[in-house]
Amino acid sequence: MTIRIALLGAGRIGQVHALTISRLNTVRLVAVADAFADAANNIAETYGCEIRTNEEIETAQDVDAVLICTPTDTHADLIERFARAGKAIFCEKPVDLDVDRVRQCLKVAAEYDDRLMIGFNRRFDPHFAELKRSITDGKLGEIEQITIISRDPGLPPHSYIAVSGGIFRDMTVHDFDMARHLLGEKLTSVSATASALIDPSIRDLDDFDTASVVMMTESGKQVTIINSRRATYGYDQRIEVHGSLGMIRAENQRPVSVEFADVFGFTRPPLHDFFMTRYLAAYEAELTSFIQALTTGAPMSPNGQDGLAAMLIAEAALASVKQDRTVQLSDIA
Amino acid sequence: MTIRIALLGAGRIGQVHALTISRLNTVRLVAVADAFADAANNIAETYGCEIRTNEEIETAQDVDAVLICTPTDTHADLIERFARAGKAIFCEKPVDLDVDRVRQCLKVAAEYDDRLMIGFNRRFDPHFAELKRSITDGKLGEIEQITIISRDPGLPPHSYIAVSGGIFRDMTVHDFDMARHLLGEKLTSVSATASALIDPSIRDLDDFDTASVVMMTESGKQVTIINSRRATYGYDQRIEVHGSLGMIRAENQRPVSVEFADVFGFTRPPLHDFFMTRYLAAYEAELTSFIQALTTGAPMSPNGQDGLAAMLIAEAALASVKQDRTVQLSDIA
Amino acid sequence: MTIRIALLGAGRIGQVHALTISRLNTVRLVAVADAFADAANNIAETYGCEIRTNEEIETAQDVDAVLICTPTDTHADLIERFARAGKAIFCEKPVDLDVDRVRQCLKVAAEYDDRLMIGFNRRFDPHFAELKRSITDGKLGEIEQITIISRDPGLPPHSYIAVSGGIFRDMTVHDFDMARHLLGEKLTSVSATASALIDPSIRDLDDFDTASVVMMTESGKQVTIINSRRATYGYDQRIEVHGSLGMIRAENQRPVSVEFADVFGFTRPPLHDFFMTRYLAAYEAELTSFIQALTTGAPMSPNGQDGLAAMLIAEAALASVKQDRTVQLSDIA
Amino acid sequence: MTIRIALLGAGRIGQVHALTISRLNTVRLVAVADAFADAANNIAETYGCEIRTNEEIETAQDVDAVLICTPTDTHADLIERFARAGKAIFCEKPVDLDVDRVRQCLKVAAEYDDRLMIGFNRRFDPHFAELKRSITDGKLGEIEQITIISRDPGLPPHSYIAVSGGIFRDMTVHDFDMARHLLGEKLTSVSATASALIDPSIRDLDDFDTASVVMMTESGKQVTIINSRRATYGYDQRIEVHGSLGMIRAENQRPVSVEFADVFGFTRPPLHDFFMTRYLAAYEAELTSFIQALTTGAPMSPNGQDGLAAMLIAEAALASVKQDRTVQLSDIA
Repeated sequence: MTIRIALLGAGRIGQVHALTISRLNTVRLVAVADAFADAANNIAETYGCEIRTNEEIETAQDVDAVLICTPTDTHADLIERFARAGKAIFCEKPVDLDVDRVRQCLKVAAEYDDRLMIGFNRRFDPHFAELKRSITDGKLGEIEQITIISRDPGLPPHSYIAVSGGIFRDMTVHDFDMARHLLGEKLTSVSATASALIDPSIRDLDDFDTASVVMMTESGKQVTIINSRRATYGYDQRIEVHGSLGMIRAENQRPVSVEFADVFGFTRPPLHDFFMTRYLAAYEAELTSFIQALTTGAPMSPNGQDGLAAMLIAEAALASVKQDRTVQLSDIA
Repeated sequence: MTIRIALLGAGRIGQVHALTISRLNTVRLVAVADAFADAANNIAETYGCEIRTNEEIETAQDVDAVLICTPTDTHADLIERFARAGKAIFCEKPVDLDVDRVRQCLKVAAEYDDRLMIGFNRRFDPHFAELKRSITDGKLGEIEQITIISRDPGLPPHSYIAVSGGIFRDMTVHDFDMARHLLGEKLTSVSATASALIDPSIRDLDDFDTASVVMMTESGKQVTIINSRRATYGYDQRIEVHGSLGMIRAENQRPVSVEFADVFGFTRPPLHDFFMTRYLAAYEAELTSFIQALTTGAPMSPNGQDGLAAMLIAEAALASVKQDRTVQLSDIA
Repeated sequence: MTIRIALLGAGRIGQVHALTISRLNTVRLVAVADAFADAANNIAETYGCEIRTNEEIETAQDVDAVLICTPTDTHADLIERFARAGKAIFCEKPVDLDVDRVRQCLKVAAEYDDRLMIGFNRRFDPHFAELKRSITDGKLGEIEQITIISRDPGLPPHSYIAVSGGIFRDMTVHDFDMARHLLGEKLTSVSATASALIDPSIRDLDDFDTASVVMMTESGKQVTIINSRRATYGYDQRIEVHGSLGMIRAENQRPVSVEFADVFGFTRPPLHDFFMTRYLAAYEAELTSFIQALTTGAPMSPNGQDGLAAMLIAEAALASVKQDRTVQLSDIA
Repeated sequence: MTIRIALLGAGRIGQVHALTISRLNTVRLVAVADAFADAANNIAETYGCEIRTNEEIETAQDVDAVLICTPTDTHADLIERFARAGKAIFCEKPVDLDVDRVRQCLKVAAEYDDRLMIGFNRRFDPHFAELKRSITDGKLGEIEQITIISRDPGLPPHSYIAVSGGIFRDMTVHDFDMARHLLGEKLTSVSATASALIDPSIRDLDDFDTASVVMMTESGKQVTIINSRRATYGYDQRIEVHGSLGMIRAENQRPVSVEFADVFGFTRPPLHDFFMTRYLAAYEAELTSFIQALTTGAPMSPNGQDGLAAMLIAEAALASVKQDRTVQLSDIA
């Protein structure tokens, strides 16, 4: 059985998924849709698929699943529409920046069969997956503290920030999901600190570029997230899990790992430049997981509820910063 | 000129200082005092000094300075007493567990010449000193985030915890001082999270064994401290400073640094077992600094005010945990 | 322009190349030939190509190039045959275990256009390529010493060893090629030491399992190669280049790079299990280079002469061991 | 019992030993002798000992042992003289650059009680000692290959080289001793390669600055030594032992181990500047071992025979280079 896919959105991340599809044997890219003709043409020519409109894809008999890689503000509408059309859906995070809209959308999707996966790609990174495995194996004993350091290589333009939903909903949301994924226990409270240090004018957009968040579970497990929108040395992505029996950590990755030594010391190259190279294997594993779930009928993971849960933590973090207090997640949800 | 020293307290840390004195050329151990005769005898025999009472040391003409290495609850009294006696004083942290008592004591000490140094030994660790140097040199640009991971190798006995003042005053206080030392800017707020995960019965002592603290300066710089009373892999002591131009970190130290590889992987030995070995060079550099300040008349650093400041942050952290809110340091001091 | 490829030999390495072809846009797998029907079927089904005989491929109008991935003793014949047929040729190393046969074969190939590339895949490893780049850039100054440590994960069966040509022609030949590739200067002498330590019965096959080789160039640059047929910790592949201005090294690679710490120390996982995973990126880059050379008409590299040169060094190494002396390469060639 | 020491030679290495003595409880520096009055004065003042002539030390009743830290060409004479005087002797390597003179000297020393230790300090380095321990413990199984990379930070002046005995007797001799120490099996053959790459004019002194040596034991174990008189990145001292069950390696050491990251990559500081800092702990452990052997009557190790054995390998290495062949150690001894 070959899964037939339509790609909605032919931008950067859409291109990554198209490449992965071409590498998988059990799946075929049938169609691409994009408001920008050039972007759609590019995918169509490279991978030999048709260019279609959303409407055509909606009613197409030869499309089993859609990949939603369009701008964020279109996600919820597209999910509802293609759920109603009976297609399986892989949607890039987030479902929506507004949690009420997310709730509404998930309700619609649930009515029409629940084949919706959300693109929290980092869960599929082989190094982070190894952390998860160590936890599950019991190698670490009881988890006590998780530390996530996550810094982007550079500040995005103000135009991006203005529509991003803010650092917690746009950037930290990945770390919130990772915390949930690793913990295996409900988070109960969030305490967040944020400032605009890289570019103070970001405060004018009611946003921050530097944040530290501490979260707690019911049993007292602690998660710390350290975020910055800029790291001069590349895309800084580290996770460390400390437990009663031991500690495990995934250090940073770099494309080339030589070490050069001279009179100034020992130097290794900078890290990956950003998520497209750092998480290449993760994107491939993620889509493979989606295809497998579709083929086997296994439940999708992470699903819409995971997407909602991470957004609720983002809400709590924002409230914590604004109110200078620890926010209980039960007050948000 | 040879500085003549009396050692008050011949326990573990007193022995470290006695050894350092024997290695320094410009200083001589004249006397030792300890309530336990065996401990005092041991020092006296090894280093060839006299055993005296506190009273004898107070009035001795051949003693320029005292090292206070006695139990915490005697520190403030001894500082006042030997300040009045005109001796220079090196005192292990903390001055007292009660901040009001610290304030009172510092007032007395200030009246009688201000030659008081507090034993925040980690400032003198060569690796952490290199971090400080990088900050001062401007190599990192503007400091944005400092991350301190500090885990003890094992839970102390309940009897110790009961009189320790609690994790923030006893353990995190070192990290509070390090944050102040590295920042070069006043901290303004503290948000702390704490739980008893290693041994839940520690809650009965009104204490915690696992803590995460986020602090902020006026300009929005963020400091995160991650503490645990137990790490199975040794004494975990790491600091990382992230700035606008770069990042610098001091990784963990181990006594022997070989790497063994076999079918199970590549293994390096555990870390140092605790502070006595991990910070040996720091203790030596610390006492050398005290002697140099004494010889040259340079101001002592860290001094009593530094000791007070770290204790005030500990108070704020405790209040933050109890009140589930961010505490302004201006409300404490 | 699409390059049309026929794959000769559908074994382990043939499968790797077939996968790479499927990932490249400008190339298409047209046919596969293999004496084992199952192997050929497997490739044909997975990649949708035809199964043909060598004869059919030889005369096919729709085949531009062949990949020779058959057993070593067929290489020279196939090269001659497909050179005469006007096909471009990519051949796994070595051309032949007998240097006279190699010479003869290269003579034939040269007559019929010189589009022959030899599969010294390690030249295309991104980490080793970075070493080469550092040398070319002048970052290391004058090269003085190259150290290559190359250990296989486990002893192959005696049946393999019996037909392998021996450790120098089968295993060290990769390191000889790497030395030539990095040096940029003619090697002049070889001094080799070898023993059978892993399995003494390998001496019965007139072979060794452990070897150390030192080579010198005309200007006195030194290359050391350290080989073993077995490393318990995985596939050990390291290169270090020391020059007048600095040193650069490529350390070992592992599939997952987490670090686990507990009471026994800090452990990272074993290395890659063997060349198929360790050099996956290299195989892809190698075939890409072949396709690019074909498309652009650029000279093939490494070519048949490179294959011959590495085999001549292997001859010299063997002579050095047998005669307990340094062998001049001018005496061999 | 306190061991009373006289120091012969108050240069760089003599100062290191004097410092160690001051740190040991069971030993006292009684006298120092040096042709340069300033050097002797310096030691005498710092450590409170007398300045004496060799003659006075020879007949002194209050001297149990002498440390010979004078120029190499005086070692053999001094050993003979102080052996006859009944003193225990610690002598810096080598006994003499001429192996016949070494043999003669050791014969004399043996007649007058055999309390002679040779200063192969690296055996006492804590990291290398851990390698030895792993071998002895059986953790590595059967040893198969030892790799020693040993590079000095910078070329010494021609005046030093002229009297040094050449790279093998002066520098590699440490590695020859380490190989013997780690192996626990007799070396049987040596194959050496050498050139003058750093400074070709060193050939005028009949010496080399860059060398690679491969040695073999009777059972076929292989040792490779890679030497250079100059490494831009500091004092490069690495050892790796590969065995049937695993591999262990001691990587380079540096005084400060922070890592700085910026747009150019991740940089750690250069290595130790030279042996005085790199092997400080080793020098201390070495002298402590000498004192312990003296106190307990245990045999000295490494002793004069160890010194001779390493010099004989140096002879063999030199012969190997000159004759372009593998030299059997049985032909030398």
